[in-house]
Amino acid sequence: MHPLQELMNPSSIAVFGASNNPLKMGTIQLANILECGYRGEVYPIHRSEETVMGIPAYRSILEVGKPVDMAQLVLPTDAVPGILEECGRAGVKHAIVISGGFKEAQGTEGERREKDLKEIAARYGMRFLGPNCVGIMNSLCSLNTTTIAEPPMGGGIALASQSGAYTAMINPYLRSQGVKMCQTISVGNEADIDLVDCLEYFRLQEEVRAVGMYVETVRRPREFVAAARKTAAEKPVVAVYVGGTEAGARSSLSHTGAVAGPDELYNGLFRQAGIIRAADMDEMIDMLWILSLQPLCPGPRMAVITNSGGPGSSLAYHLEKAGLSVPLFSSSLREKLDGITGPLTYTGNPIDLTFETNVFIFKDLLEMVFTSGEVDGAFIYGIFGAPDFMVNLNKRFPELRAMEKDWGEVYHRFLAELAEVPRRSRKPLAVMSFFGAQSDSIRALVENGVPVYPSAARCARAMRALLRYLDIRRRMRGEA
Amino acid sequence: MHPLQELMNPSSIAVFGASNNPLKMGTIQLANILECGYRGEVYPIHRSEETVMGIPAYRSILEVGKPVDMAQLVLPTDAVPGILEECGRAGVKHAIVISGGFKEAQGTEGERREKDLKEIAARYGMRFLGPNCVGIMNSLCSLNTTTIAEPPMGGGIALASQSGAYTAMINPYLRSQGVKMCQTISVGNEADIDLVDCLEYFRLQEEVRAVGMYVETVRRPREFVAAARKTAAEKPVVAVYVGGTEAGARSSLSHTGAVAGPDELYNGLFRQAGIIRAADMDEMIDMLWILSLQPLCPGPRMAVITNSGGPGSSLAYHLEKAGLSVPLFSSSLREKLDGITGPLTYTGNPIDLTFETNVFIFKDLLEMVFTSGEVDGAFIYGIFGAPDFMVNLNKRFPELRAMEKDWGEVYHRFLAELAEVPRRSRKPLAVMSFFGAQSDSIRALVENGVPVYPSAARCARAMRALLRYLDIRRRMRGEA
Repeated sequence: MHPLQELMNPSSIAVFGASNNPLKMGTIQLANILECGYRGEVYPIHRSEETVMGIPAYRSILEVGKPVDMAQLVLPTDAVPGILEECGRAGVKHAIVISGGFKEAQGTEGERREKDLKEIAARYGMRFLGPNCVGIMNSLCSLNTTTIAEPPMGGGIALASQSGAYTAMINPYLRSQGVKMCQTISVGNEADIDLVDCLEYFRLQEEVRAVGMYVETVRRPREFVAAARKTAAEKPVVAVYVGGTEAGARSSLSHTGAVAGPDELYNGLFRQAGIIRAADMDEMIDMLWILSLQPLCPGPRMAVITNSGGPGSSLAYHLEKAGLSVPLFSSSLREKLDGITGPLTYTGNPIDLTFETNVFIFKDLLEMVFTSGEVDGAFIYGIFGAPDFMVNLNKRFPELRAMEKDWGEVYHRFLAELAEVPRRSRKPLAVMSFFGAQSDSIRALVENGVPVYPSAARCARAMRALLRYLDIRRRMRGEA
Repeated sequence: MHPLQELMNPSSIAVFGASNNPLKMGTIQLANILECGYRGEVYPIHRSEETVMGIPAYRSILEVGKPVDMAQLVLPTDAVPGILEECGRAGVKHAIVISGGFKEAQGTEGERREKDLKEIAARYGMRFLGPNCVGIMNSLCSLNTTTIAEPPMGGGIALASQSGAYTAMINPYLRSQGVKMCQTISVGNEADIDLVDCLEYFRLQEEVRAVGMYVETVRRPREFVAAARKTAAEKPVVAVYVGGTEAGARSSLSHTGAVAGPDELYNGLFRQAGIIRAADMDEMIDMLWILSLQPLCPGPRMAVITNSGGPGSSLAYHLEKAGLSVPLFSSSLREKLDGITGPLTYTGNPIDLTFETNVFIFKDLLEMVFTSGEVDGAFIYGIFGAPDFMVNLNKRFPELRAMEKDWGEVYHRFLAELAEVPRRSRKPLAVMSFFGAQSDSIRALVENGVPVYPSAARCARAMRALLRYLDIRRRMRGEA
């Protein structure tokens, strides 16, 4: 079994460093384990407390008397080796070492301490994450051992990261965008389990549809490339690398003891590994969102359907800048489209509906351009038929309020049906909207797997990643 | 008086095209005028209805019998010239023509109709916006004549745009980010009032601290450059241009009848005009946010204060990529910083606090780096001391819930004080956070004028704009 399999899905967890002091990191993390829905056994280990947060505590791991699948350690640096040793003696085979003060502390002592951890683990056949990490999330067992209060969400995205913040604290950002992620692994200093292991593990997880990584250094380049290529043959892998500048490198060294290389080196490494490089986390999330949900993009030809000229022009511009195309539709297709829109609408591509209160038309147009064979993917701007738009009208037309619920249901059903079109057509759709993922105007789209971005540039970058992945997959499968 | 002065601040408005049919664009716009707080007189003009949305309607503008400062027309294209003529005869000096079907319709008839409008307006000394626009917002008189239900917010940002969506529909996006905008003008086809007029008008408005424009074409290049240079000498001007690609140009032509030029031409034009070019609306908003709120950046040297290594390394990387620097602090400064952080913290820049529950330390560190003279601006990542973080702890520690309100107040006051530091030090601060503007963790920062971005790349781009504007201002003032 893959070493991360049990670590990510433990039946029981021992927690070191949680207490009844709510300001301690270990306490916060235990609160999150207890309150995010995890159903396994949880054993706080504490030298003096009888109970921690209301559940029975044990003086030592050796006193638990039941099998423990995984131990999480949030302890003063000096205490870590001794406790890890005790865990080994108790038969614990998986650990997460949250504590810092190891290799990243940059003294010979930190290095020595980290070496000690590795020796202890090896002696007991134990695999561990960290040190200097923030834990894991796994929606499959509702486990959240990190410092962020929000539970993992479920969805097709998995993240492995050399930054803890980027696996845990990023959660509120993902939620507000409507982006769903199922597993995150904070690898810290990678004394034992590293990004290579994460790539292999994520490849084997069926629910993982797209893999994201935050990288400050690659410690085993050869194995990294091999694992990434194998993973990228099955599912897209995107990575952020920051370390290619002077201060970036200095920061990485103090962060995870990572020795960073120049940007170009990593560009080459990622290219060889079949990894799409993203400039920053937000861009990576944008890419992973569409990659985890939409059909692959069979080619570069894009349709743009909009009810406003500015977003239409912006999409056309940014798509072409990104190397995609927005072809002029054939006259026979335009004639058919005119049949839906009426003769006053420009249907050459972008299709600009201008002000249009009949939202259903978007679905008819999308189906028509997808079945035409003239495009490989599509964008829509301007879906807003729901209460968001009616706030002031409802105040002036009480009769509208009476219809609001019915209309809301019709509208939501429409969005769900619209979301089916790309899946049925096997061509990807992205939506541009200034309404947030929680707004009534687009919520049902997001819930049904259509990514929604608030700018043309972000739409274009995301779609380009989808197109690039098809190439990468062919290459990794030896088809090209 | 500037022609836009009265148009943007009318004491009375006549509305053509609103009715008791809630699906009509004119009706939606009248609902927004009536429900967003406007206190002037509103006269719906309708051929047959006695009242429109519960307020008395008039059969013709000539029947109102009271002075009308501004008329907004949302009528079938053919009806527009006649009604504009009637407005002229009634002494109305300002109009907004929402209706389309003019130059953007690309037939000779559309061109002729637009020429008719200009002739009518000239004959009566009338100035007008549009045709083919969506109206205006002005927080100073709580006026919103557009189709978006949300009222204008107030704040230091003004937008003029050749896309209506980008002045109106973008509102929910601005709100969710916490970005405040005071005035927006949708210029449409610019048959009369154009971007040049908007630049001149915004220059004169004290509350406008930063000007944004969405541009598909510049119709009067010489006047545009002159007006922009004059404005940029007083306040920053940022613009988005999309039109430099084949499909972008095609889309612009059908949108506002704009004849687009190549990208490079516009780069040169903007450079000459003292305008900062943004790639897309989201980037422009990011820039305008910091430009409208923070002190100008006196130089490129940046401090980074973080409680997490990943965001610290990312900020360092993206700042250097953006041409800013993250200098290693002097040993004397580091000694002083160590006095605050304790010896285990890396204080070389980025300052990495790792896990730190004492948020107050951020303010002490910021003041120290600002007074050191070693940096010109700063970034903070990792402020989250508020309930966001305590959700699960509160469930386990009932005593915390009792303290929650007090702590919330202390925390909010702390954020407000932190927000004062950049103003007092005359050096800019931007915050990176994954919590949204409405979250308790950062709301008080946003409310007190500190922009908060969810990625390092966005932080860096925004700060670079602030630095660039100082150069531009010097140049426009003839100081450089």
